[in-house]
Amino acid sequence: MNEFELIDRIVARLGDVTHGRGVVVGPGDDAAVLDTPSGHQLVVSTDTLVAGRHYPDGSCADAIGYRSLAVATSDLAAMGAKPAFATVSLTAESLTADWAERYASGLARAAAGFGIAIVGGNIARGAESITVTVHGHAPNGAAITRAGAQHGDRVYVTGFLGGAGLALGDENIAEWSLTLAPEGRPGTRKDDSPLGRYWMPQPRLELGIALRGIASAAIDISDGLSSDLDHLCRASGVSCEVDLNDVPLYPGATAMDAIASGDDYELVFAAPPETKGAVEAIALRHGVITPVAILRNDAHPGATWFQDGIPVEVRPGYRHF
Amino acid sequence: MNEFELIDRIVARLGDVTHGRGVVVGPGDDAAVLDTPSGHQLVVSTDTLVAGRHYPDGSCADAIGYRSLAVATSDLAAMGAKPAFATVSLTAESLTADWAERYASGLARAAAGFGIAIVGGNIARGAESITVTVHGHAPNGAAITRAGAQHGDRVYVTGFLGGAGLALGDENIAEWSLTLAPEGRPGTRKDDSPLGRYWMPQPRLELGIALRGIASAAIDISDGLSSDLDHLCRASGVSCEVDLNDVPLYPGATAMDAIASGDDYELVFAAPPETKGAVEAIALRHGVITPVAILRNDAHPGATWFQDGIPVEVRPGYRHF
Repeated sequence: MNEFELIDRIVARLGDVTHGRGVVVGPGDDAAVLDTPSGHQLVVSTDTLVAGRHYPDGSCADAIGYRSLAVATSDLAAMGAKPAFATVSLTAESLTADWAERYASGLARAAAGFGIAIVGGNIARGAESITVTVHGHAPNGAAITRAGAQHGDRVYVTGFLGGAGLALGDENIAEWSLTLAPEGRPGTRKDDSPLGRYWMPQPRLELGIALRGIASAAIDISDGLSSDLDHLCRASGVSCEVDLNDVPLYPGATAMDAIASGDDYELVFAAPPETKGAVEAIALRHGVITPVAILRNDAHPGATWFQDGIPVEVRPGYRHF
Repeated sequence: MNEFELIDRIVARLGDVTHGRGVVVGPGDDAAVLDTPSGHQLVVSTDTLVAGRHYPDGSCADAIGYRSLAVATSDLAAMGAKPAFATVSLTAESLTADWAERYASGLARAAAGFGIAIVGGNIARGAESITVTVHGHAPNGAAITRAGAQHGDRVYVTGFLGGAGLALGDENIAEWSLTLAPEGRPGTRKDDSPLGRYWMPQPRLELGIALRGIASAAIDISDGLSSDLDHLCRASGVSCEVDLNDVPLYPGATAMDAIASGDDYELVFAAPPETKGAVEAIALRHGVITPVAILRNDAHPGATWFQDGIPVEVRPGYRHF
């Protein structure tokens, strides 16, 4: 099957998620053409997953499809942007129609769940990797960056950390398929097992949008809380001290492992003390939010870690180089 | 050097091309934030280059940087879109600061030449490949697709084909560096040798914009005229017969080789006969445009080839699968 036939198969399997949502020209032309809503800014992020590094070699194609879109979309959640559309570039040494269609089915399920149109892409021969570029919208000036946190702001973490990281020790990780995940609302995940959490991250999209005007800074936890909170602090020029006992943990995860794992794709954000009630209201609606630290001005910005009041060395999150 | 230090080096070397042009938040946050012009649509395309397949292993980093942005931007030219911004995902087994900075310098030169802001990206460890997603703007409804050509329209090719393809036979191809290319207008190429054409494609951006409202369909020649004209015909539901003698050739290239080579990144477009004068005026301003065929309605759309009036089998363009 040649590359144009493969692309036709992928686009056919994507089905409805290539239409609507402002898509004027979708997959199949030199470029996609999109309407953009007035009064809004475009929010754009790109992420690459490499087989054997970001996920095990030989993993199920539908799971790879879901995860590849989810991890990129998490960056939109951290910005408080509403997802709109994405392009997907798939590189593989050999690409069968069956593998491509299963990949597309996982991608389509995630796209439907997140409200994303798949508007274009690329296939090429080479070592297996996937690059997804996601695009969202936020009202002018409403996007939340890493850099706005101030002295006195509280730091919060969403959900529980370390669950998806436990999947890395599961010998069945590469065999997990979306066919194992019962579907609730289209595209979402009911399975809260480590493998479900690993393969079907649920970007905190609605929570991120709710944080517009409340959070002073936010970042998604893609490398691990130890690294990502440090990034937020440095970008904002503040510091904080976090006790490992305060980290919200998935059952069975240790705090040390949980803060060095980014696979849960939760958010860490800062908000001024006067927004405490607003943050609690968001938690009631969108799920657990845990305060973990208070920010202060510091000539040496960053996050430092304690356990029972004693300073501890923590592992950094995942590093490529 | 860890990945965050590498990213800092790349962003520093990119310099001015990460700012301006509607960039509200550039590289370094979870996502970029961009203003979009009202009354315009967004035009988006993504392309992947794999080392050892799209360019020789061990090629000069600055040349790879230039070419990786240029080939993606060519898709915007084909749509008649004005380039605006791009994200760049770079994957490599080992990434030194020196290589990354040279890559960034080539990318910056292309970005400056094409009017593109580099607003974000990704680096990961894996087999060397680069995925660029480019974004441009076109006035509402003005983007040119592959699908609008009609019975009676003329088919035109820009420039001369086969020059960049000759570089593939040059044993010095991997040693070519931008330092060998004298700079005229920032980012542009003065070197019209096969190696210069291969490493520094000049997307037909101004010509593509001039074709708005004139061309009924357009496609960039990225796989080879034999494939790409066929795509245009099939998308538009028309057919044409082209004589190899009518293909505009770079000196030294054979027609058979030239139509199977996409590395020149010229355009092929269709336009109604009554726009002949307008097309000639564009040629006077933007360079050689050659008529090669006339389109007709056909139950079996596509391009067929002749030489001296006799049907010939031509090689398809590059195929990945």
